[in-house]
Amino acid sequence: MIKSKTTLRVRYSETDQMGFVYYGNYPQYLEIGRVDALKTVGVSYRSMEESGYGLPVKELKIKYHKAALYDDELEIITTVSSMPTNKIVFDYEIRRGNDLIITAQTTLFFINSARKACRPPESFLQKMKGYFS
Amino acid sequence: MIKSKTTLRVRYSETDQMGFVYYGNYPQYLEIGRVDALKTVGVSYRSMEESGYGLPVKELKIKYHKAALYDDELEIITTVSSMPTNKIVFDYEIRRGNDLIITAQTTLFFINSARKACRPPESFLQKMKGYFS
Amino acid sequence: MIKSKTTLRVRYSETDQMGFVYYGNYPQYLEIGRVDALKTVGVSYRSMEESGYGLPVKELKIKYHKAALYDDELEIITTVSSMPTNKIVFDYEIRRGNDLIITAQTTLFFINSARKACRPPESFLQKMKGYFS
Amino acid sequence: MIKSKTTLRVRYSETDQMGFVYYGNYPQYLEIGRVDALKTVGVSYRSMEESGYGLPVKELKIKYHKAALYDDELEIITTVSSMPTNKIVFDYEIRRGNDLIITAQTTLFFINSARKACRPPESFLQKMKGYFS
Repeated sequence: MIKSKTTLRVRYSETDQMGFVYYGNYPQYLEIGRVDALKTVGVSYRSMEESGYGLPVKELKIKYHKAALYDDELEIITTVSSMPTNKIVFDYEIRRGNDLIITAQTTLFFINSARKACRPPESFLQKMKGYFS
Repeated sequence: MIKSKTTLRVRYSETDQMGFVYYGNYPQYLEIGRVDALKTVGVSYRSMEESGYGLPVKELKIKYHKAALYDDELEIITTVSSMPTNKIVFDYEIRRGNDLIITAQTTLFFINSARKACRPPESFLQKMKGYFS
Repeated sequence: MIKSKTTLRVRYSETDQMGFVYYGNYPQYLEIGRVDALKTVGVSYRSMEESGYGLPVKELKIKYHKAALYDDELEIITTVSSMPTNKIVFDYEIRRGNDLIITAQTTLFFINSARKACRPPESFLQKMKGYFS
Repeated sequence: MIKSKTTLRVRYSETDQMGFVYYGNYPQYLEIGRVDALKTVGVSYRSMEESGYGLPVKELKIKYHKAALYDDELEIITTVSSMPTNKIVFDYEIRRGNDLIITAQTTLFFINSARKACRPPESFLQKMKGYFS
């Protein structure tokens, strides 16, 4: 299993006139969480993309529990619970202290430089194997 | 049942370096679709909010089928299939001609000026009733 | 001289908790204006980019006169007053009916597929010449 | 004089299909810089807004020197060179190591809870005075 924690501070631009973080800004936060989870295991998403791979999102689910506010410090807890195949599933919790703000899940798949679905790079799978027995 | 169609053109700012519409921009498109669906039945979201109500999102699900590109003209088809109660469920398809780009669903609930969950405004329910028998 | 007008409706996601359109969202609107101005004279920015050129922004100036609000219908008036060279200057006004919301100016320059500054495509200059005597 | 430095990492969502940070995302970065500059001198923008004041932008100027890329670590250097009156001017540099990415200036003014231009809160002026002799 892979698990990472990262924090961010809510920007003014991310609020809407209801006074909350706009619901459509959370996918940005999730992406920060999963890039961080990959870094934790020694995978740089930037390098992976520079070598021709991409990792687009196939499916997104978010449950909104509590509103986040401007200047809040949020914690993103990202988990990968099962060994990635051609796809990889990330689970997320975003918290403000003890408050649960959202829970979410994204499923991503690998594409090659021709923009076709493909197996992950071998080096990626090698790095992952250590975390799933 | 309520059904509406609205179109939009992909902005440059909405693309990412993969060359696709960033996955986190679709919630903005969905919001345009549902505001349009409400207008279709004579409900102005703006007026509803000005009179003290809000309609935050409780749950979001998106399946990404095909990538949309810069300058694409997209059609958002929004459907409300069952009579709203304290919550309202919208289903969406976003298409580019015959290509299905995404399918999505959002569940929203009503809040009053004290930011507490509440029944929808009576006038809203009256307008809705004509569409669900 | 080139002059174009295009309209857009303010999205909920574009507001901030002050209840106004976030100041940082106007550059998106300006880009819609200039793409439209180019279309007016038969230039597709999308095609130009597909053929290897880019048109990044070198300089941006905005004066904010009045706040725009959610659901406002805004008019973007875009002007090119002098014949483009390696760079091109766009002037903008964004209006809501008689209210002037912002005035702005952007200076852009051409880059080639190697991401180096370059002369505009010949076909672009040809199309422009008719508008500047 | 007030001067602050803060860092941020470029998000994937902030890139565009040219492969650069979208030019319209820098105003968000500038806002992070100025909120940080105010914190440096003991002013919380969040608290100021909660007590009824707002600080909208009147004028924005950006010069783009070099493109920033996904995952870059950027440094925002924010300066206030003259004692704020009813308005306050911030100057900015955004750097990636030795590379200058952009320089910018924003002018902001104070509004009260009635959304009218006003003098800054007295406590704000008191805190500022120590920095300008």
